[in-house]
Parts: sequence; structure tokens; C-alpha cells
Amino acid sequence: MAFTPMAFSSTDTTLPATIGDVKTVSDDMDIFWLMFGAILVFFMQTGFAMLEVGSVSIKNTKNILIKNIGDASLGAICWWLLGYGVAFGDTSGKFIGTNNFDLKGALFEADDGTLTNGYSYASWLFQWAFAATAATIVSGAVAERVSFNAYIIYSVILTSFIYPVVVHWGWAGGWASAWRETDLLFGCGVIDFAGSGVVHMTGGLAALCAAIVVGPRTGRFNEDGTANTLPQQSAVLQSLGTLILWFGWYGFNGVSTLYIVGFAGVAAKTMVTTTISAAFGAVTTVLLGKFNLGHWDGGAANNGLLAGLVGVTAGCSTCEPEGAMVIGIISGFVYTYSSKMLVMLKIDDVVDAIPVHCFCGAWGVFAASLFATKDNYGMAYYDRADKCAGAFYGGAGNAVGANFVFILAVTAWVVATCTALFMGIKMTVGMRVDKEMEQIGMDDSKHGGQTYPEMMKGTTAA
Amino acid sequence: MAFTPMAFSSTDTTLPATIGDVKTVSDDMDIFWLMFGAILVFFMQTGFAMLEVGSVSIKNTKNILIKNIGDASLGAICWWLLGYGVAFGDTSGKFIGTNNFDLKGALFEADDGTLTNGYSYASWLFQWAFAATAATIVSGAVAERVSFNAYIIYSVILTSFIYPVVVHWGWAGGWASAWRETDLLFGCGVIDFAGSGVVHMTGGLAALCAAIVVGPRTGRFNEDGTANTLPQQSAVLQSLGTLILWFGWYGFNGVSTLYIVGFAGVAAKTMVTTTISAAFGAVTTVLLGKFNLGHWDGGAANNGLLAGLVGVTAGCSTCEPEGAMVIGIISGFVYTYSSKMLVMLKIDDVVDAIPVHCFCGAWGVFAASLFATKDNYGMAYYDRADKCAGAFYGGAGNAVGANFVFILAVTAWVVATCTALFMGIKMTVGMRVDKEMEQIGMDDSKHGGQTYPEMMKGTTAA
Amino acid sequence: MAFTPMAFSSTDTTLPATIGDVKTVSDDMDIFWLMFGAILVFFMQTGFAMLEVGSVSIKNTKNILIKNIGDASLGAICWWLLGYGVAFGDTSGKFIGTNNFDLKGALFEADDGTLTNGYSYASWLFQWAFAATAATIVSGAVAERVSFNAYIIYSVILTSFIYPVVVHWGWAGGWASAWRETDLLFGCGVIDFAGSGVVHMTGGLAALCAAIVVGPRTGRFNEDGTANTLPQQSAVLQSLGTLILWFGWYGFNGVSTLYIVGFAGVAAKTMVTTTISAAFGAVTTVLLGKFNLGHWDGGAANNGLLAGLVGVTAGCSTCEPEGAMVIGIISGFVYTYSSKMLVMLKIDDVVDAIPVHCFCGAWGVFAASLFATKDNYGMAYYDRADKCAGAFYGGAGNAVGANFVFILAVTAWVVATCTALFMGIKMTVGMRVDKEMEQIGMDDSKHGGQTYPEMMKGTTAA
Repeated sequence: MAFTPMAFSSTDTTLPATIGDVKTVSDDMDIFWLMFGAILVFFMQTGFAMLEVGSVSIKNTKNILIKNIGDASLGAICWWLLGYGVAFGDTSGKFIGTNNFDLKGALFEADDGTLTNGYSYASWLFQWAFAATAATIVSGAVAERVSFNAYIIYSVILTSFIYPVVVHWGWAGGWASAWRETDLLFGCGVIDFAGSGVVHMTGGLAALCAAIVVGPRTGRFNEDGTANTLPQQSAVLQSLGTLILWFGWYGFNGVSTLYIVGFAGVAAKTMVTTTISAAFGAVTTVLLGKFNLGHWDGGAANNGLLAGLVGVTAGCSTCEPEGAMVIGIISGFVYTYSSKMLVMLKIDDVVDAIPVHCFCGAWGVFAASLFATKDNYGMAYYDRADKCAGAFYGGAGNAVGANFVFILAVTAWVVATCTALFMGIKMTVGMRVDKEMEQIGMDDSKHGGQTYPEMMKGTTAA
Repeated sequence: MAFTPMAFSSTDTTLPATIGDVKTVSDDMDIFWLMFGAILVFFMQTGFAMLEVGSVSIKNTKNILIKNIGDASLGAICWWLLGYGVAFGDTSGKFIGTNNFDLKGALFEADDGTLTNGYSYASWLFQWAFAATAATIVSGAVAERVSFNAYIIYSVILTSFIYPVVVHWGWAGGWASAWRETDLLFGCGVIDFAGSGVVHMTGGLAALCAAIVVGPRTGRFNEDGTANTLPQQSAVLQSLGTLILWFGWYGFNGVSTLYIVGFAGVAAKTMVTTTISAAFGAVTTVLLGKFNLGHWDGGAANNGLLAGLVGVTAGCSTCEPEGAMVIGIISGFVYTYSSKMLVMLKIDDVVDAIPVHCFCGAWGVFAASLFATKDNYGMAYYDRADKCAGAFYGGAGNAVGANFVFILAVTAWVVATCTALFMGIKMTVGMRVDKEMEQIGMDDSKHGGQTYPEMMKGTTAA
Repeated sequence: MAFTPMAFSSTDTTLPATIGDVKTVSDDMDIFWLMFGAILVFFMQTGFAMLEVGSVSIKNTKNILIKNIGDASLGAICWWLLGYGVAFGDTSGKFIGTNNFDLKGALFEADDGTLTNGYSYASWLFQWAFAATAATIVSGAVAERVSFNAYIIYSVILTSFIYPVVVHWGWAGGWASAWRETDLLFGCGVIDFAGSGVVHMTGGLAALCAAIVVGPRTGRFNEDGTANTLPQQSAVLQSLGTLILWFGWYGFNGVSTLYIVGFAGVAAKTMVTTTISAAFGAVTTVLLGKFNLGHWDGGAANNGLLAGLVGVTAGCSTCEPEGAMVIGIISGFVYTYSSKMLVMLKIDDVVDAIPVHCFCGAWGVFAASLFATKDNYGMAYYDRADKCAGAFYGGAGNAVGANFVFILAVTAWVVATCTALFMGIKMTVGMRVDKEMEQIGMDDSKHGGQTYPEMMKGTTAA
């Protein structure tokens, strides 16, 4: 503590300043911005934890909490040792990064070995928070019956390898990235600004594979094809989690500009479209819920919000507010009916993570290629707007091609690797706890006892 | 992702920088600041949700949660389509804004049609979060008996029209605004920096009207004039909500400078006075509670904090810390005794929103006209300090006049419109659920079932 | 509201800018940064409140909540009137600050009486949040049996005097500070960047003294030396609190650079090492828990995270990520076995605050003197790296001496003053509630009734 502030090229405040003086301030503001975003996105872990714990039975409370803390902790270790290098290392055949496998890697030093200004540290932090998000999406879907060991293995593999490869493809030097200097996919690269595809589809597809392999909770589906609603411990915690996620999403989408100087306007517009889509997603889903269920459903409000947020994540920087409105409304439909479809298919997803993240994520990537305006594309991306803007706003259709191919490729990659992973786990350590443990709950059998001992006994006396 | 940082007028860092180079950084920092504030203020929705859900019976849990998510979501839609234009559009007779009724309006483009730097987007976001705050104040007061449809109609009208008009008066081009170039009210305009009047009185007065029109909860008051304390589900959630509100209030008050460059000192002082007033509000109210109730009351600590926060919101940028101390202490008294008065008048306010927001809000506006020092007024407002500083600090009394007239006008406007609104609702769709629904709770009857099914049955077995 | 942005030395954006123009932006960004950090650190109060309330029996819910709100509120008042001056006032014999005993003090004005740019206000806010953290560490350790009056007296004395003296020693003009211009301890001063010693050891040692003087909860220890686990109301609230603390810790450690311009890289690296240590602390402690307890323990995950965070707080800006890894791993061991030791010594600490804050705090201070690299020391501190870097990274060992002496001095000071304080309280107003009150719980007897009246009765009907 007690530092002294920055020394500029002169202490005489009347003398002319150099570009270097301005750049010092500008560079450090960019780093501040990225740290700000990283912290907000990290807080989404708290949101996921509360949402998921509110959605499971009391008997699995501790189990879900420790899985969420594990995602963030193991995620940091894996992202440090492997993931960040796979994602952002120098490309090798456009498929995978092949250096920088720890924080001593070249990304943290200038080419001549001198120390960097620290931007790379902030970048690591920001991207770690995204990786932890991708990982944790799965925990809710397979809650209440997946084995702890299986989950840990999955979490390590996803943050070390499966997710970083997708990041490399979409945001770094990989084949689909809009940031490559040459050889752009369809001459454009994919529009997936903050990761409807990179993060949410990846997490959501992994959840889909896991839910299929692990099978539904005992008692979820009846022989006649109908489904039972199993106990969810707290609507309050679900809503708390949802609101925290909304809060953190401003970091997720807004700070994905990665720089603030020169991009503050893009960031602000991004936060506006994020808000509009979330709002229309919630309202649409609540109205559909009223129509389908006959009551005003709080779960629909929560998941509809999240659907709108996921849906706009790819196109948040390139659509106008009215585009965000349409994206949000359609996200509400995508969520509602993909959720129904999963029930029909007897795929059991405790928190509806698959409809929200997988299906709305895919819709979001596709929507980005429709609603990107030329002005917005030019500001958020490069000067290829005539070719690469959205199909509804005068683009030549290349974006539709690029984004569609990206959806297919991410789907193929995640489904292939995750199916192999989960089948491998199933045949070795096992994916699922035994029936008895599922019946009495995992807290009692694996995590040292039940939660709420006092309330469950109905007494406060010691 | 993967942008490159800003290019300045030269890449040679030893060359002189231009004013334009500095302005790029400065403008983008202002936008960053406003986004930072918007996100903090938005998080106050989470605080209100937790505070309110902790204060109602378990049987109305889902009902209150969906109302809070509705305030933020519908608020965004209404603020986009109507509210922001009414509030910040060009003035017409100093009463109401008359253009910019959506995000394509002139506020989002420069006069020549070129794109703006994005400040207007950040401004929309910041002001939306304030509008949602004003709306949500009501939901706690009328909880547990107001009908869902009635609440939704209210929420839409408040964020589209009633609240934006007050904003126009106090903060934009309207008759009471200190930011007009000519024709200032009492030569000064109102001192209501972050909205003790604009936001809290508006929300609190709407809550008062609603609580009177809807009537008290069944069983709240006895025939002999005494009151019963009805079940409140969780002191933990009340305190969680209060602490989140305190956290968010630093955005509410501090970031109301709207710009950081040139105003960082004002913002920092604002956060200090906010802290001091909150602290003295809490301590005063706890001591009064001990005196009145005979025990150390957690509810008094929570509401005393909020009273101190509301009380200092108008004057936070212009008072000194010792002024904030006095404001906080008196806020504690205002809260405690206005709360008692409401009980005597048999007005049922589930969360004491009316004492906190309406009465402490009015006190706050008045206090701002007493405690503004000349130095602080000059830094936070304009160079009219000799005329417009607080009555206790050498001002000529004009501020007292302006602020007093503003209190009266806001009261008249909100009471008139809200009474008309709520009476209209009462005579058409109805304000209140029927007795049976109130008895069994709204979750069971309207929102798909009770919360905490497991705990309420006293068993965790599936 | 509705300010106009900053005016620079010219409105012609093509003209050269002055150093003064750049400095305006730079200074205000430093203030923004400090406010950002203050708000994050303040939010840790919410984290402590949730962690502690989740760890106590339901019957003491309100009691712990009001103590936490009291720490922040009384802390603000004491820090305003006394604490900040004791900590940061001009030194007198290197022991204690002797001026600036309120916000009108010289720290808030330039030497010539003119107004400062506001940095001092932001500094007050940031340091207040730290003081409240130090104070609140105790409330968890002595929960469920300490008397409310005793706690309030303690909280006032700690934030007014005991803690500020330590701050003066370590971070301001005192004898151990690395920021003195002459007479540095071992030629270096202590490396305690964000306060493993200043904050966490101080709070943790006070907790240790308090826990010993107040004695264990009734029923905690058996005559044969074994210990019983007493009811903890909610693992969810414990985890929520822990995650909020992790979130706030980025402000605690990262923003302890105090300035962002010129130090953004240090801040970003600090946030990375903080993350790495937390992650390894959690994983290590969970593995030790599995080994010792036989199950995957959520409490171990939470406390291991906190152990890793406390452990890296002193050295976060000067160690490399691999140093943070080692610090985190050892923190997990220190936590686990110091927790066991306390049980053996029959010292009852409800939330394990003493292992986390006192023992991991001491380890953290010591670790900082081992793992500081020369490059990092030079960037975060001054150009004395050859002498003052860590013993494992080529330093001359002076840092080990300075940090070791600081550990001893803080221990001696806090143990001496706190023992005197708590013994004095014990012999006058009493430290402990009577047996009957402890049995039925403090909510019923002192805070107006039990929490969760509905759940505890097992019914929702009014």
C-alpha cells in the first residue's frame, strides 16, 4: 500500500504530453476493463451455484455445492496448466494451440523476453472465468445421480481440452475465427461475440451427452411416458441465482470487447441489447408458460431470462435493440419447446440447462448471422461489413454460411468427444451413484451428513 | 474477441499527443463509469427481491419473486419504448419529453445522423436501472394481497409514464431541473442529486397510494386498533437483501455524477457521505428500537440502514460528512416514527417501504437544501453556490424554496396519478386477490404450487 | 445528473495536449479504481454475514446478522472519528498516527488548505472496508455465546484503535512499513501487500483471544476430550458467503495497488496469483478432508478456498503463479491441522476463523518473504529488490527478517491489547450470555423472536 501515482514524461503539467503518456493511461484502462469483466463473469459461478442448489432436493445440497466450487478451483488449475495454451497458443494447423501451457509461457512475456504490461494476466483471468462457466453448465443437468468422481474427471477434461479447442476455433487462431488475418471461413469467420456457441453450446452439448449417458433420475419418468416433478428445494435460491447470472452477464457480453478504449460505445450498446433480449425472453416465456401451464410461472421467468441472455450472446455487439427484441422472443420459444421435447425424449435435465444453453445457444449463433447490421459489424469487427453483415441487414449471406458451419462443427466436436468421455467413464469408474445412495441422497452418504438438520427435525432446541 | 487496442494519432510514442487522443480515452472512461454504475444499480433488484421475499410468508414466495423479475423485465421494455423519451426527450413546455421514444431516437445519434460514441447507450442502461428501482419499491408494500394482474398494469404505467415525468422535471429539461440553462426554479433548480425525491419519493408515494387502495392484509389489524406481526419467512434473506442494496447504492449515489473525468472527487466524497449516513441511520434506529421494543432488533438495523441511505441520496454530493451524520440520525427518527404512524393509520406495508422511501425520501430532499456547502455545490453543480448552497451553510435560501416546491409537486403528481391508476384498476380488473386465495397463499393458487415442499412436509425422502 | 464532460486545455481536438490534460484523466482513473476496490471489499461483509449465519444454529440467526451489520456501521463511525487518523495520520515515533481524526483532517486537504482532488475520500472508503473486515472476523469465532454488549464494545475498540495501530505500522508511516523514506526495518520493511498480517492476523488473533476468554459453547466438548458438531443451519449460506468472499477478494488483493495507472499489470498479476492460491487451497483441503474424514467435505472446500486466499494476500503482488501454487497448498495444510489443534486445545471456533485468518495469515506473511521475485518486487514496491526479494528467489534474506519480526510484533500487540480488552469486559459487563439464554438461543431472548417461525412449526397456513 501507499504507492505514489504514475510519473509521466514530465512533471510540468503545462508541457505537451506524448503519445506514450496517453498510451500508459489507455493501456492500463484496458487492463482495468478486463479485470472488471473477469470479476463479474467469475461471480456467475455464485449464480450457477444458487440456481442449481435451489433446483435439487435438499438431500443433494452439499453435493451440488462442492461440484460448483470444484469447477472454479479445478478449472483454474487446468486452465493454468493446459487450457489457456490450447485455446490461445500459437496455432498449428488451425486446430489447436501448441504453446503457452502455463503462466510462464510466451503469452506472458514480450517476444524479446521483457515483461509485458500485464494485459495477458487480465486476459487469462477473464478467459478462466469463461471456462469455468462452460464447465459448470453440466453440473445442473446431471445433478442428483451423477457420481462425484465422474463429475470431477469430466470437469478436468472439459476445461483442459474440449472447451479450449472450441475457443481456439472461434476466438483465437483457429479455422473459424473472425480474427485470423488470412483464410477466413466464408471470407468472414464466425460471428460469436461473447460465446453463444463457444461457451453455451459447448456446455449445453456436454450436458446433453452427460444426461443421456447417465440416464434420468429414478422416479422422473413414468412407464406411460409422463414425467413427475421431483422436489426442488427453493424457488428463492433459483431466483437469486438467476438474478446474479443476469448481473454477471453484463461482464460476459459487455466486456467481451476486450478493450475499452475505442470500444466503449460497442460495449454500452452490447449491454443494452443484452438487457432487451433478456427482458423479451422472460416475458415471452412467462406468457407461453401461462398458456401451457395455466399459471404465472416463476421458473419460466427465470429460464426465459436466461434463454434471452444466451440467445443474444453471439450477436449482442452487432444487432440493434429491435434485433435483440426478436432474438429474445424467439429464444423464449426455443427454450419452451426444446424443454418439452427433452421431456418427451425422456432426457432428464434438473435445471433445464440443455434447453437454455444448448438450444438457445445454437439459435443465438444463427441469429447473429441474421441480425448483424453493417454499422455495428464494422465497429465491433473489421471492415468486411458488406460481405459479412447479417442476412436481414444487407449482408451477402457469408455470415450465415460461416455461422452455420460453426454450429455444425461445435456440435460434432463436443458430441464426439463428450460421448467418448462419458462412455469411457461409464465403463470404468461409473457415471452414476447406486440406487440406494440416490434414494437417501448424496449428502448423507458421501458428504458428511444432511443439510438443515435442525429444520428437517422441526426443532431448534440444541 | 481478440481485438486490437486503440490506435492514436501516431504510433510513435515519443511524438506529442493531441487533445483528441486524450479525449478518446477520457470519453471512453466516462462510458465505462456509467456502465459500472448501471450494473451496480441493477444489482439492487436482487437486493429488493431478497429483502421482500424474506419479509413475506412462505406461501407467497413465488408470487413476490416473479413480480420482482417482472419489474426489471417489463421495466426494460417500457423504458425502451416510452419511458426514456418521456424522461430525457427534448422538453415541451418543461413538463414532458416528446421525442426519442425508442433506442433509434435522436438521443442515440448525433444531430447530423452519424453514430454517437455510445455514451447514450450507457445512459439508457443507467437510467433503466433507476426506473426499475422506482417501480419495485411498491411490490414489497402491497405484497401478499395485491393481484398479479393489477401489479403488472401498475408496473407498466409507472415505468412508462409516471416516473419518467418526474425524471424530466428533476433531472432533464423540466421546470425544476438544476440543469436547465434558463428559467431555473428559484434561480437554482432542485438539489436532488441521486434521487431521494425523483426515485424514492416517487416509488414510496406510489406504494402509499397502493397500500391504501388495496387495504391491509387479513389479520394484520385487530378491531381494537392493535396490529399483529404476520409471518416473515427469513431474517437471513432480509439482511442479505439489505446488504446487497447497500452495495448497489454506491452505484446509485456515486455514479450519479454521470461523468468520472473531472468528477471523480465528487463521486468519492459522495460515497463517503453515503456510508456515514447509512451507518448513523442504522445505529440510531437500532437504539430507538431498543428503547421502543426492548430488544436489539435486526429489522431496525436493516431498515435504519436503508433510511440513512435514502435520506442522503439527494444531498450526498453536496453535504460534508458531518452533514451526512445529521441526515442519517434524523432519517432514523423519521423512519421509526413514520412507521409507527402508518400502523396507527392501519396502513399495512409489509416491508416498511413507505417509511423508508417516501418519508425518508422527502426528508432527504429537504435536507439537501439545508446541508449543501458552497464548495461542494460548486463542484457538483454550477457556479451559483452563493445563491443556491444550503441554508445551514451560507446559502441564500433559494435551495430551500426550490426543494420544498419540488417535494410538493412530486407528491401532488404521484398521488394524483397513482390514486387514479389504482382506483381505476380496483374498479376494473380488481386490486386484490380473493379471501380464500389470500388465506392459502398465492403460490399454491396462481404460481404452480408451494415453495419448500420438502421442508414443509418435514421429510427429505423422495 | 446531466453534467457535461470534462473541459481540457483546448476544445480543438487537433491541438497538442498537455501533461495536465493527461493527468486529469489519469488521476480520476486512479480514484475510480480505488472506489471500485472499496465497493468490492465492502461486499465481503455480505460474504461474512452469509458464511457465519449458515454456520450457527437457527436459534442465533438474528443475533449474528445484527452483529455483522453493526461491524460495518459502527466501523464506519469509528473509522471516521478515530481509526483513519490513528492509521494514516502523521507519524509520531513510528507507533501511531496523531492527526486527521475526522474527515476534515489534513488528509482531506492539500497543505495550503485548498481542496484535494478527492483521492483521499476514496482512500478512506477503501480502508474503512478493510477495517470492517478485520473486525467482523471475530464475530464468527465467538458466535452463539458471546454477549451482544461485549461484542459491540470489542468492535468499537478494534476499529478505533487496535487495528489502526497495526495499519500504521505496516502500511503507513510506522516502524515496519515498506513505504517509509528512511529507517526501514531490515532495510526493507515488511512485505504484506494486501494484509495477511495487517488484516487477517489481526482479526484472527483477536478471535483467538476472544474464543479463549469466552470459552466454548455448552455441549461443544465432552469430558473425554472429544468434540461434538453442533447444528449449523445451512451449507448453502456457507457456500454463498464463501463465493461472495472470493469475489470480493479480487478487490482486496488486486486493488491494493492503490493506483491503476502504472500498476495495472501488477494488479492483474495479483488477481491471477490470488486465483491460483485459492484453487490449490481448496483442492488440497478437500483431499486432506477426504483422507481425514473419509468423505468429500463441502466445508473443507469452503475453508480451503479461504485459507488459500488469506495465505496469498501478503505476497500476491510479488510471487509468481507457481509460488502461489505452493502457498495455496501449504495454506490447506496449515488450515487443516491448526483447526485440529484448536479442537484438541478445546478452543471453540464456530466458523474456523482462527485457522483461516490467524494461522494462514501468519503463514502468508512468512511466505511473502520467501516467494517474492526480484522483478515482481521491483514493480510492486521499490528498487530495493536485490536486498528485499524473497529468500527463494535470490533475495538477501532481509525480507525474511522483516516479515518475521512483523509477525511477532503483530502477535504481541493484538494478544496483549485483546487479552486486556476481553478480560476487562469479562470482569465488568461480562463476555457471555447466561446458560439459559444460550440454551434457548439469543434470537428468542434478545432479538424479538425466532427466525423461520413458519418452517419450525411445519405449516404455512396463517
